Amino acid sequence: MFGPTFVTDRFAECTGLRAWLTAMLDFEAALARAQADTGLLDRQTAERIARECVPENFDPDSIAARAAESATPVIPLVRDLAERLPPEVASRVHRGATSQDVVDTAAMLVARTSLDLVLEELRGVADECARLAREHRHSLMTGRTLLQQALPTTFGRKAAGWLTGVVESAEALARVRRHRLAVQLGGPVGTLATLGNEGDRVVSALAGRLGLAEPVLPWHTDRTRVGELASALGTVAGTLGKIAVDVELGAQTELGELAEGHAGGSSAMPHKRNPVRAVRVTAATRRVPGLVATLLGAMPQEHERGAGSWQSEWEPFTELLRLTGSAATLTRELLTELRVDTTAMRTNLDLTGGALLAERVSAELAPHLGARRSERLVSELAGRARENAGGLRAELLDDPTVRSVLSRERVTELTEPGDYLGSSELFLGRALEAYTRWKETTTGDPGL
Amino acid sequence: MFGPTFVTDRFAECTGLRAWLTAMLDFEAALARAQADTGLLDRQTAERIARECVPENFDPDSIAARAAESATPVIPLVRDLAERLPPEVASRVHRGATSQDVVDTAAMLVARTSLDLVLEELRGVADECARLAREHRHSLMTGRTLLQQALPTTFGRKAAGWLTGVVESAEALARVRRHRLAVQLGGPVGTLATLGNEGDRVVSALAGRLGLAEPVLPWHTDRTRVGELASALGTVAGTLGKIAVDVELGAQTELGELAEGHAGGSSAMPHKRNPVRAVRVTAATRRVPGLVATLLGAMPQEHERGAGSWQSEWEPFTELLRLTGSAATLTRELLTELRVDTTAMRTNLDLTGGALLAERVSAELAPHLGARRSERLVSELAGRARENAGGLRAELLDDPTVRSVLSRERVTELTEPGDYLGSSELFLGRALEAYTRWKETTTGDPGL
Amino acid sequence: MFGPTFVTDRFAECTGLRAWLTAMLDFEAALARAQADTGLLDRQTAERIARECVPENFDPDSIAARAAESATPVIPLVRDLAERLPPEVASRVHRGATSQDVVDTAAMLVARTSLDLVLEELRGVADECARLAREHRHSLMTGRTLLQQALPTTFGRKAAGWLTGVVESAEALARVRRHRLAVQLGGPVGTLATLGNEGDRVVSALAGRLGLAEPVLPWHTDRTRVGELASALGTVAGTLGKIAVDVELGAQTELGELAEGHAGGSSAMPHKRNPVRAVRVTAATRRVPGLVATLLGAMPQEHERGAGSWQSEWEPFTELLRLTGSAATLTRELLTELRVDTTAMRTNLDLTGGALLAERVSAELAPHLGARRSERLVSELAGRARENAGGLRAELLDDPTVRSVLSRERVTELTEPGDYLGSSELFLGRALEAYTRWKETTTGDPGL
Amino acid sequence: MFGPTFVTDRFAECTGLRAWLTAMLDFEAALARAQADTGLLDRQTAERIARECVPENFDPDSIAARAAESATPVIPLVRDLAERLPPEVASRVHRGATSQDVVDTAAMLVARTSLDLVLEELRGVADECARLAREHRHSLMTGRTLLQQALPTTFGRKAAGWLTGVVESAEALARVRRHRLAVQLGGPVGTLATLGNEGDRVVSALAGRLGLAEPVLPWHTDRTRVGELASALGTVAGTLGKIAVDVELGAQTELGELAEGHAGGSSAMPHKRNPVRAVRVTAATRRVPGLVATLLGAMPQEHERGAGSWQSEWEPFTELLRLTGSAATLTRELLTELRVDTTAMRTNLDLTGGALLAERVSAELAPHLGARRSERLVSELAGRARENAGGLRAELLDDPTVRSVLSRERVTELTEPGDYLGSSELFLGRALEAYTRWKETTTGDPGL
Repeated sequence: MFGPTFVTDRFAECTGLRAWLTAMLDFEAALARAQADTGLLDRQTAERIARECVPENFDPDSIAARAAESATPVIPLVRDLAERLPPEVASRVHRGATSQDVVDTAAMLVARTSLDLVLEELRGVADECARLAREHRHSLMTGRTLLQQALPTTFGRKAAGWLTGVVESAEALARVRRHRLAVQLGGPVGTLATLGNEGDRVVSALAGRLGLAEPVLPWHTDRTRVGELASALGTVAGTLGKIAVDVELGAQTELGELAEGHAGGSSAMPHKRNPVRAVRVTAATRRVPGLVATLLGAMPQEHERGAGSWQSEWEPFTELLRLTGSAATLTRELLTELRVDTTAMRTNLDLTGGALLAERVSAELAPHLGARRSERLVSELAGRARENAGGLRAELLDDPTVRSVLSRERVTELTEPGDYLGSSELFLGRALEAYTRWKETTTGDPGL
Repeated sequence: MFGPTFVTDRFAECTGLRAWLTAMLDFEAALARAQADTGLLDRQTAERIARECVPENFDPDSIAARAAESATPVIPLVRDLAERLPPEVASRVHRGATSQDVVDTAAMLVARTSLDLVLEELRGVADECARLAREHRHSLMTGRTLLQQALPTTFGRKAAGWLTGVVESAEALARVRRHRLAVQLGGPVGTLATLGNEGDRVVSALAGRLGLAEPVLPWHTDRTRVGELASALGTVAGTLGKIAVDVELGAQTELGELAEGHAGGSSAMPHKRNPVRAVRVTAATRRVPGLVATLLGAMPQEHERGAGSWQSEWEPFTELLRLTGSAATLTRELLTELRVDTTAMRTNLDLTGGALLAERVSAELAPHLGARRSERLVSELAGRARENAGGLRAELLDDPTVRSVLSRERVTELTEPGDYLGSSELFLGRALEAYTRWKETTTGDPGL
Repeated sequence: MFGPTFVTDRFAECTGLRAWLTAMLDFEAALARAQADTGLLDRQTAERIARECVPENFDPDSIAARAAESATPVIPLVRDLAERLPPEVASRVHRGATSQDVVDTAAMLVARTSLDLVLEELRGVADECARLAREHRHSLMTGRTLLQQALPTTFGRKAAGWLTGVVESAEALARVRRHRLAVQLGGPVGTLATLGNEGDRVVSALAGRLGLAEPVLPWHTDRTRVGELASALGTVAGTLGKIAVDVELGAQTELGELAEGHAGGSSAMPHKRNPVRAVRVTAATRRVPGLVATLLGAMPQEHERGAGSWQSEWEPFTELLRLTGSAATLTRELLTELRVDTTAMRTNLDLTGGALLAERVSAELAPHLGARRSERLVSELAGRARENAGGLRAELLDDPTVRSVLSRERVTELTEPGDYLGSSELFLGRALEAYTRWKETTTGDPGL
Repeated sequence: MFGPTFVTDRFAECTGLRAWLTAMLDFEAALARAQADTGLLDRQTAERIARECVPENFDPDSIAARAAESATPVIPLVRDLAERLPPEVASRVHRGATSQDVVDTAAMLVARTSLDLVLEELRGVADECARLAREHRHSLMTGRTLLQQALPTTFGRKAAGWLTGVVESAEALARVRRHRLAVQLGGPVGTLATLGNEGDRVVSALAGRLGLAEPVLPWHTDRTRVGELASALGTVAGTLGKIAVDVELGAQTELGELAEGHAGGSSAMPHKRNPVRAVRVTAATRRVPGLVATLLGAMPQEHERGAGSWQSEWEPFTELLRLTGSAATLTRELLTELRVDTTAMRTNLDLTGGALLAERVSAELAPHLGARRSERLVSELAGRARENAGGLRAELLDDPTVRSVLSRERVTELTEPGDYLGSSELFLGRALEAYTRWKETTTGDPGL
């Protein structure tokens, strides 16, 4: 029932039953052709096999059902494929390969398609973050720590923080995409014994045909690649979850700083502006760490092929791709239509009447009153301001000690948040530069 | 692709899209009737609503797709239901309820059906463990610690250990089934404001109609029930995984003590007896701890209803039921057909020529030679036995010091594993008694 | 460095190195005495052994360091104990037991002490929740869903929700405390072979002496008890984390509804009221699900004793006790000193000028205007209210259609939140009753 | 009690209380000097501060205890530091920084020291794997899938698989070490407002002084770096756990192929060869995925600084470093002293009398008998061999159909495992080449 609530069509498709089936068939076709490339099979037989390897020829549900008997979908798949071929051709199907060769290579193919889409969405997310950073370079708002108002910042600076997380986690994912998706071909125990001395040449041809990396050796029970992929997705999900939590918090009725363009309404409660997409991103990304843990926990696999540990990877692997990918799509959509209420931001910033700038005032008073005394005084006035709900500025202006050393104008200046932003804009600029460099390196890169 | 490899039909069905849809409709029907019970609605209108609440009237895929807009499947469901009714009836549908009331109650209904099946399967698993314990009361085998041969035991004792784990974890799950599956009805913030003063009476009637417990108060953001259910399933999965790992290890070619009845063959490797069901149980149960962690991690939900944390529960909740349930089915099937090779067990036990009994020999020599000296001597002879591959018994019989205090007959007796089983049979008997008591208390109990 | 930030002294102590050492020595002393009880050892020897079993006689750091050699602290402990005794007594030390017997029983003893303290703290947490529920039975506040204002509720109702979660999760933990902490004694492979036919009587005597349950059989690789304990702690942690998140959110500067009594100040930012205890509770409880997952994942242990899986339990087991216990202490302290600002609650409730009650107004208008039309009208007015920042009440009073059917008085009544609380107080009462019953059953119960 | 069982001294030290204290003091000293570098502070004051920043001046236990009050160890640390200085110097301590700046930078410093040691240990592990691969290039053994004997391989090939996993996961960790450990300096909300326009120059100077990377901007709530570090450690732990599980399985009494040099003895069971180090590696690495999940789950941190999510990182971060590092040390030691019994390997390989080579025989018969018939015949003979315990070779030699097409010599050849290793040696060679290249690139690289 609930899948589509969190998984977008795009990622449901590229990781679905049919996508896996297609990838497994691509493996079998490429294997036959790779054996023809290396002279182990005549070209005609290879093409005859490859011709049958189209998903339309197979019934994925039936294969899935029969997968249970042998704990692998490959046996029924190869059987169905063989039955479509004359006996002498059928006997050449899947030659030298073991079930895990098919499933692992298919996983890498599914991952490749999915990662390309994830990375495309992440570029979109980054574009929106960059736009928000630029547009809101001067949009003053409250910086908050431990959910308490702390010091002024700008919404642009906040968006620049999101941007940096997205760019850096996308870079790590792109590295996995470019270098770590490799073909798997090793036969039952990773020696490719059936292929005699030709094994490594077949691996090489297969890798070339499928556009995957050629591994140093078959990696049946070396799950480093899976661990790295899962981890990179996990980190990306974390940066997306960060954006979602900030939107949810900013959209609180009492803050009212952010709202989703298509905020979910409620017929019963028309005043509500549910941050629906942010909620979906949170729901999706919260499931990610458990899946990463399952995949990392499955790494120590027994001997030459694991008993249960390997099989436990399949669904979490698929889930990770679809949840992280969908979260990226939803975050991009969310940011594209994000409504930023700069007036509300300013109102919230003024809520404490300048108390956020206490440290600044205190620092200004210190040379006159001594550090400790000035700190105590400002703290006292801030406390009084809280009780009187009048704001720190008013209390400062009322205080004779303060006024003996600071003019009205200076007090007003010191409690003006827009003048206390430090390197905020500079940091924002650096984030945009880093983003621009990253965009340049990735433009036109099919591997990203 | 891979779902059916690990999830059996039975559990795919009772946790599938249609099962969820039916449960949500059951809620809406029972809600209307409960309002009639308490006089808030006329009986005829209630029955008119209830009559439409059959899954055949709805398109689950369409509802699932539209769920995304508002991050809940309830809004499209209620809309579709209302459209099937005349306006004046439609306006009474879903009255007083919030989306979470529907989804949480549906979750409890899905859980109830699933837990009944899980508990039935666990009774089946326990029956098989009990049978094996009884049949193999005297089947001598090697007890192993840290994967090393340690001391003699019996296969019956091992099965009694499995049995105890299954019975005790099933008891904890049954407790959740009996006491902790409760109806959810609170309206948007858990006050049931729409229902005026009648709220609690409607809750009571609803609980009665659905056969679920009546909670102290609406539990929208008190996820204790979910935490307890997840935990109980997690513990059950652990006990099933324990059986699977023992079968996988016992089925190793070099041990050959256990084999699955329908061991997965391999055309390429006809000598293989893949423990396919055990592998599927392992694959399913290894995914459980990560799901439990996701659900426990989602417990701290914000205010009156969570933003993303609640929604993150849906799929892990469903997965937990189906994975644990399927693991129970597979374990039951596995045990029903388990082949136990008592000859191989005996052969393995004799592999070290009595060295397993070194501690016993040492204890017998101690009064004569002193504890330390006898220990050192036996250790030395055991080492020699390992090098000579002749067995400890032979070395003992050859050693003049030993022979000066122990007769040939006594040495033979002391190195006979069948005489060194301590309370093994007694423990086995206690496990069977506990199982019998448990069976009696659960017989005819629909709640178990 | 950081341990004490989250772990309170109380729980650091009862789970620390010395507590474990004491528990292991208690096992050895009780084992000797239990053997005297059953005639396997003369009383004098038993007492001689028991007399040495005091922590002052041992160097815990040295034992911990030497534990590495054999992956168990028991071997050096028993060696140090034996060396304090004359040879003929030393040879009776630890008789029949295996390392795991000592560690598992010690774990149960450490758990018992810790759980008693955890349950005591949870009773304290429940007391505070009950007090807040009673005191704030009529403190109106905003109920919030998805972090959006939704409908009115009371702070008492919110505290009643916390209370119910605490009581119910504490009950589940108390069940584990009462029934599932059992002695472990099985010898190397769970047969107690060394003790001949006396094994089960020694187990029984040992259980009696240590005040732990007697298990059906030795449970070396049946980790159901550990799974249940971990799960129950995990659920408790979730309910504590829920309280903490509500406090953190309520303490936001913009909400200002809750504050910690000893809110963490910041010299640099004197206006801040950091919810320090809530933050510590959150930090502690967020680590719990991963620890529970590790323990559940360790359940499938090999054969008669696990290779690494068992050993992986030790530290997570200890961490779980100390993090959950400390979170309970901190939550109790937090609630005891919690400052509730009912004025701020009311101010926030009025923020939308009655828009929270739109559904109520709409329901009142429906008989006059038809359901759909009245809903659309109210939604429109609510939208206008948001834009004009004037509140729904003002818009309703201004609207001719509304006024044609509702009087000024009725509009005012309908938009008064205090009249729209449904069963809120009733639910609160039920939560207090359930709490009172629970208190009665647990009073004077040493097992709770 | 149990820490030292799994954590080696080396890693206990570099991640301990004192190491954290030193790192925090290094931050404060470098901050003062960096401000002198940029003209914000006079050099003398900076040096005066820096001179006090030595761990001997502080009481770590007292700081840890006082950390609880404000949920951070920085406040007591800075207070103690300030108290050692004259007031005018004291007021310049920690200037511009917030607590998180200190803790995050200290975490990066602790990580750097630890990662250098982890990488050194991983080089040692790789060296041993490479040695074993070279030495056992021709050591025939059984390849096993799903714990069943499958096809012949060599122990060298197995070690080459370990080697590749270690090299590739170490590379990913080294990338994090080189590029992702960055200084943190942002002040309360990441704007460095206190430092006026000089903020970024101070960051730059600080990074240079501490030898950490300079980040694009302060990363208080962008936890990408932490996610990447945790993930890389998680992947490394997985490859170490893989080696451990293979050693544990190979050390089973019934296989006897591998043994630890200092196998843990048992006085009671002198025949045992407990794979103690492998067990410790397994125990340590099994705890890693849960810790990684906790850190990934903590990534979505609120606003400018998290409330509890950030604080939940501290101990898991430390644990991850020490557990993974210790596992690396233990794996290196384990491999250095690993005893490889090539005779036992050969004996196990011959256990099925050539049945492992059934696929090869079948392929040879196929041209004569047809694929299907030859497969069926061989499968039948293998079944008979299993029953008669005589081996496939004997059955083949006895079978008239086989003998009608294959000579005695050919049958013998075909069932000789040493001739059926495919690309095994070639793969091994490639793994050694990749290792050599990696060693070259890392030699003399302080960053690796």
